[in-house]
Amino acid sequence: MQKHSLSGVYAPVLTPFKQDGSIDPKAYACYCSWLLSQGAGLALFGTNSEANSLSLDERLTLLEHVLGQGLPATRMMPGTGACALPDAVTLCRAAARAGAPAVLMLPPFFYKDVTEDGLFAFFAETIERVGDVRLNICLYHIPQVSGVPVSLSLIERLLSRFPETIAGIKDSGGDMGNTLAMIRAFPGFQVFCGSERFLVETIAEGGAGCISASANLNPAAIVSAYARARDGNTEDSQTSLNAFRSVFDGMPMIAALKRMAAEYGGHKNFARVRPPLSPLSEEHWSMLRQRLAVVKFAAPGLHTAFAGN
Amino acid sequence: MQKHSLSGVYAPVLTPFKQDGSIDPKAYACYCSWLLSQGAGLALFGTNSEANSLSLDERLTLLEHVLGQGLPATRMMPGTGACALPDAVTLCRAAARAGAPAVLMLPPFFYKDVTEDGLFAFFAETIERVGDVRLNICLYHIPQVSGVPVSLSLIERLLSRFPETIAGIKDSGGDMGNTLAMIRAFPGFQVFCGSERFLVETIAEGGAGCISASANLNPAAIVSAYARARDGNTEDSQTSLNAFRSVFDGMPMIAALKRMAAEYGGHKNFARVRPPLSPLSEEHWSMLRQRLAVVKFAAPGLHTAFAGN
Repeated sequence: MQKHSLSGVYAPVLTPFKQDGSIDPKAYACYCSWLLSQGAGLALFGTNSEANSLSLDERLTLLEHVLGQGLPATRMMPGTGACALPDAVTLCRAAARAGAPAVLMLPPFFYKDVTEDGLFAFFAETIERVGDVRLNICLYHIPQVSGVPVSLSLIERLLSRFPETIAGIKDSGGDMGNTLAMIRAFPGFQVFCGSERFLVETIAEGGAGCISASANLNPAAIVSAYARARDGNTEDSQTSLNAFRSVFDGMPMIAALKRMAAEYGGHKNFARVRPPLSPLSEEHWSMLRQRLAVVKFAAPGLHTAFAGN
Repeated sequence: MQKHSLSGVYAPVLTPFKQDGSIDPKAYACYCSWLLSQGAGLALFGTNSEANSLSLDERLTLLEHVLGQGLPATRMMPGTGACALPDAVTLCRAAARAGAPAVLMLPPFFYKDVTEDGLFAFFAETIERVGDVRLNICLYHIPQVSGVPVSLSLIERLLSRFPETIAGIKDSGGDMGNTLAMIRAFPGFQVFCGSERFLVETIAEGGAGCISASANLNPAAIVSAYARARDGNTEDSQTSLNAFRSVFDGMPMIAALKRMAAEYGGHKNFARVRPPLSPLSEEHWSMLRQRLAVVKFAAPGLHTAFAGN
């Protein structure tokens, strides 16, 4: 597993939509560039990207667009999860061919209470059909949304059968005990926490990093806390990260992040969400703005990220 | 709502897969013909069809294939639910253009705990984008799988805004109280139960019919019970339907139905499922075969349905 060098802080990149509901690829690429400038990697097509609200073609076209803009595939971890095996294969193949060092892959999430054999077969068949040694999979455990957990025993079976392909996991379950169990059970397996609330402990215990919604708006601080934690310096980083994270308490996270990106970036296409999500209410925005003032939030450079777009 | 004449018994058509995992369109069309010969309508692309395990292209191609084979669109209720709005639009448009009197539409099922406003917006935007007066939507309530319920108040809002398009609902929640509440709350709204266990009561209370997994194997009996219930004759139909239905107790339903279709139809492509589902174990098949002997199960004509294929 040493060949995998996945680590650091990734943002599940927010997806801007034009007034007609279609994706705004130019604003998206600019936003990706800004995230990179802040030290964050690009977890394209994550939960906070509304990836499952995009068609397969939209995802493929958007990936091609950012690659065409010269954004480095080496800093990308595209989401490739799908209910349908052929879609997962298509997405994994595109990401591996592009040179992404890993993909972030949900289990198939329509049927619930499926067997471990069935989930194993889904991942195994995807890997075999893609048939590309460049494919590395970071599994994605987010049972409160997907309804389908990725268990320790499933990971063990996948690692045993595909040691060169199964690279790590993002644990968004919110249970640090589970994150620690995965770090300890599988040496060399790259475990990312799904919220920066767990960042310092995850790194101290040997985890790989963090793939977090709020890395979309607060990337530099999270990246800096990550670097300090890697150096064994953990004193106050977690406290200030938590202070920022709590501005979202009681809010619909994706809508709140997108409204912030729209306001701080001066680009209203970020404020739009696709149904079934709803845009942030003005009441929530007013509350959020007050909280942001208290934590002295700033998004350096975001207001100029979209110049000319 | 009188313009909608949806009623009767529909089978969520099982999908046969070739050894390479691709769909077998010929066997599928033959199976559709057999179901029609037994009096069942075709709920193509339902939960038991593994619809969400098929790519968008696979669904569109399969629909075109059965239409090209001369199967009547008037007897079809294709599933068009999707997480991504563009996919729902594409599927609804194809079904409406084909002349299907209704589609069966899941709510978007990736995000959980979404607002009623968000779900309303998803259906509303789909209807507006399709922009075809031929589109009639049968909503699909199956919260134990989708994780996203279709509430009475959502139905009320949709009916109020789109009285010509919102035609009915399939209630697979397993709670007869909810089915009755929907029948009573919305006169003219076509309410289908999701299991024939509730058929006689549903019809007696003014419901429209039944869209049931086991209508794939037991269509004639369910259709006959439906007709008798419509005539007010309800004595023993329910008991015998329930006896058949209970052969699946404790079994993975889809795998069990597909194994039966393969065995009774003599076409092994039906026994295959797509991951994350697993094929029926031999232990389960042995148990199922014994139970079927007890209820004297027969599938008249199914063994000749695939002649030449």
